Amino acid sequence: MKNKVLEGIKEKATDVYKTILKKKTPELDMPLRSLSNVKYDEKEGYFEILGKKKNRTLTVGTIKTFAQTLRMMTLSKELVEQDDIATKREAYYVSKNWKEAMFKAQPDSDAVMDDVEAMMMVNREQLGFIPEEKGGEVAGKLIVIDRDPETKKEIKIDCTKFGSGAYSIPISLEHLKFETDAKFILAIETAGMFQRLVKHKYWKTANCILISMGGVPTRACRRFIRILSDDKKIPVYVFTDPYGFFNIYRTLKVGSGNAAHINQYFCVPHAKFLGVTPQDIIDYKLPTHELKEIDIKRGKDALKNDPFVQHYKEWQKAMKQMIDMKVRAEQQALARWGLNYVITKYLPDKLKHPEKFLP
Amino acid sequence: MKNKVLEGIKEKATDVYKTILKKKTPELDMPLRSLSNVKYDEKEGYFEILGKKKNRTLTVGTIKTFAQTLRMMTLSKELVEQDDIATKREAYYVSKNWKEAMFKAQPDSDAVMDDVEAMMMVNREQLGFIPEEKGGEVAGKLIVIDRDPETKKEIKIDCTKFGSGAYSIPISLEHLKFETDAKFILAIETAGMFQRLVKHKYWKTANCILISMGGVPTRACRRFIRILSDDKKIPVYVFTDPYGFFNIYRTLKVGSGNAAHINQYFCVPHAKFLGVTPQDIIDYKLPTHELKEIDIKRGKDALKNDPFVQHYKEWQKAMKQMIDMKVRAEQQALARWGLNYVITKYLPDKLKHPEKFLP
Repeated sequence: MKNKVLEGIKEKATDVYKTILKKKTPELDMPLRSLSNVKYDEKEGYFEILGKKKNRTLTVGTIKTFAQTLRMMTLSKELVEQDDIATKREAYYVSKNWKEAMFKAQPDSDAVMDDVEAMMMVNREQLGFIPEEKGGEVAGKLIVIDRDPETKKEIKIDCTKFGSGAYSIPISLEHLKFETDAKFILAIETAGMFQRLVKHKYWKTANCILISMGGVPTRACRRFIRILSDDKKIPVYVFTDPYGFFNIYRTLKVGSGNAAHINQYFCVPHAKFLGVTPQDIIDYKLPTHELKEIDIKRGKDALKNDPFVQHYKEWQKAMKQMIDMKVRAEQQALARWGLNYVITKYLPDKLKHPEKFLP
Repeated sequence: MKNKVLEGIKEKATDVYKTILKKKTPELDMPLRSLSNVKYDEKEGYFEILGKKKNRTLTVGTIKTFAQTLRMMTLSKELVEQDDIATKREAYYVSKNWKEAMFKAQPDSDAVMDDVEAMMMVNREQLGFIPEEKGGEVAGKLIVIDRDPETKKEIKIDCTKFGSGAYSIPISLEHLKFETDAKFILAIETAGMFQRLVKHKYWKTANCILISMGGVPTRACRRFIRILSDDKKIPVYVFTDPYGFFNIYRTLKVGSGNAAHINQYFCVPHAKFLGVTPQDIIDYKLPTHELKEIDIKRGKDALKNDPFVQHYKEWQKAMKQMIDMKVRAEQQALARWGLNYVITKYLPDKLKHPEKFLP
């Protein structure tokens, strides 16, 4: 992978160099990043990018962006060669030494970084650029195989041995490997619910890996779940509420519309929705919150326009049911029947029938 | 500690019970939680609560809140006895089974929980109530001693053995113990900077413990730093920027004004500010951002009204300098001189003179 990135950068740069030597106008082309250049591919299971491209030709008007793109490619090449990392913010500050090619504001350098990412068709992390935000926590039946950054010696991290704590997913993680005999991964919405399941060693009872997403999963968290579940061929069950469907579950499963060139790395197409479903509200007599007008509107919009919802009858049914009921319930609502009802009743009930999970 | 909490709850409840038997009107009293009942104690080093109290007497108007307070005390008693935990959200849902004493909305149950916390003069976590949000990450020269939640057997977690990952601080942590020969704790503002220092094993070079606060430190993160540094008598150096002074550094060091009854548990009075200082902007020729009008106003207000700033000439000088310069710099700005300038130059320079750190 490292070599593929280096070769890709060199190839693009050599093209530009040779074109200039021929006294012709150099060009850089990259996929167009917009919803108009996206389709939902049922087989692949994520928003996929189509063939539309944009060109950046060297002209008087584009000379600065052109130079900045080449500079950003150089920075990436250095990072990959030296096995180093830079955040988007750091990359912006590095440009302060690029003289005329310096970025005036971070949104500009972020956009050029996205261009380079799309041009190389790899995710930013493979170019050495890491996100600012951290990535979720893990506890349970999993050994993470990392390496010592200095000696490169293998390090085994046993996620059953953290007591009430957990393993914190690093933001640079492409090199990780895994050992596990867990039956499934349980991806959990809230840090509080995660702490409850850790406290009661639910991972032992259910023979599983617990991952706390802490709200909308970060890129690092999604990528971690993806490479772990791909590598070990274990199912991923998502434990959130239907209200968190768009932000949390769908982002994890199919990625996001405006980052389609990298969704293939950052989605978990085989993830399934364990609950809380609208039907659970009835079956488990859960306390509810009324849906706001805006939520009902959003649900109706999704039924009409969301390519993901349109693909799945089960989701259409669930969305319609939620809109009809005009209420939602949170995962914490299970506490109504006792704090550990979720462990003794709800999760065991659900896990008897994974075939009933929403797709 | 566990027994102290149980005794405290029993004592208060017995008072109420006996008063009722005497056919008198029962009362619960608790410290008034507001800035008017707070002082900055230089010796203690945190915002301390004064003697003003509020009473909750049983009347027709207060009967519901009175019952809810007793119910919340009961829930806490059960949690402590059973060594279990509940988030604020879960506690709210548990109340759905309290019939007439049910809470209508979570802000109401949060307020009663705060009352019980203040009444018992312990932090909420000691009552079994844990925060929703997670608490920061650790890497470096530290062994955390936890226990298996099931067997209660001791577990040792070696924070030098996480490769590019880290130990994730649990939200229930009062029972943790430590082993370390580190010279200091470096509390870092951003997850990106933390990842850089981990990647380059800076904790080994500097013989220290790295803690990522990920922005404003959560209660769990502050409490972790506090008990670790108290227990092991090691200094805490904070690496953020002056812009983050109020939100990040001061919250860590002295706590917050409107939670004074618990600041003694959630502050780190001996923390020192390593940088980035306004003087660093000059000394290290850092790229800057202009201060907004609102930031200048906030700085001037702090000089006039903030009891913490008024106590420290060094902070007055630094604030004035920042206001005069009208700019700020972020910790990532050091990348201007190369991505690892922070490791090879800035931190070593600074650590030669801890006596120059801002108080």
